[in-house]
Amino acid sequence: MDRIPILRMGRLLLVTIQVDMHDRLAMTLQDDLTTRIVKDRATGVLIDISALDIVDSFIGRMISNTAAMAKILDARTVLVGMQPAVAITLVELGLTLEGVSTALNVERGVKLLQQESEWD
Amino acid sequence: MDRIPILRMGRLLLVTIQVDMHDRLAMTLQDDLTTRIVKDRATGVLIDISALDIVDSFIGRMISNTAAMAKILDARTVLVGMQPAVAITLVELGLTLEGVSTALNVERGVKLLQQESEWD
Repeated sequence: MDRIPILRMGRLLLVTIQVDMHDRLAMTLQDDLTTRIVKDRATGVLIDISALDIVDSFIGRMISNTAAMAKILDARTVLVGMQPAVAITLVELGLTLEGVSTALNVERGVKLLQQESEWD
Repeated sequence: MDRIPILRMGRLLLVTIQVDMHDRLAMTLQDDLTTRIVKDRATGVLIDISALDIVDSFIGRMISNTAAMAKILDARTVLVGMQPAVAITLVELGLTLEGVSTALNVERGVKLLQQESEWD
């Protein structure tokens, strides 16, 4: 497992995180994602973390950074599928996920991104 | 990692396989997927294997079986994101993936499933 696949759906990109992130995988993901945002002219990025039982400060920071990079490239990031326990941990860790919207699932995330692009 | 997440997009379900499948994970996936097809009234299943460099006979059979189960539940299965090397291996192994359609990527897979449901 050397990279996380990025799936394209129209002008949106979908990333499903299923494995524990380590430094190198996170950097490869950020590289791949920024490249794909430009190449596919994506307007939004959905990051699905429904498979994660735990989100530590490393992953939290990685998601924040990825969202910040996407924003500079004019794409919004929505984090979807967060488990209740993860939400509790994030607040307890004091990770506010600046600049990242959240949605219950992929469908709602897609709607959120579509609404946002209509407002532009 | 004890289960592979299943994402819903309208009437379609999307599964991204990123890790090596072992017996138990494969069985959990089949259980989860059949349950979700019924619960979400899904008409199609997309299985993304773009992260897999190798597909052995076990995964090949697992995909075939999953597609057969989905078919009985009135949902079509499309396998997307197959790498060239995987296609070569599948043919060399003699795995024909009966009853499974393939598409280059998720977008084309979605189109294929939408076309098929229009034909019904």
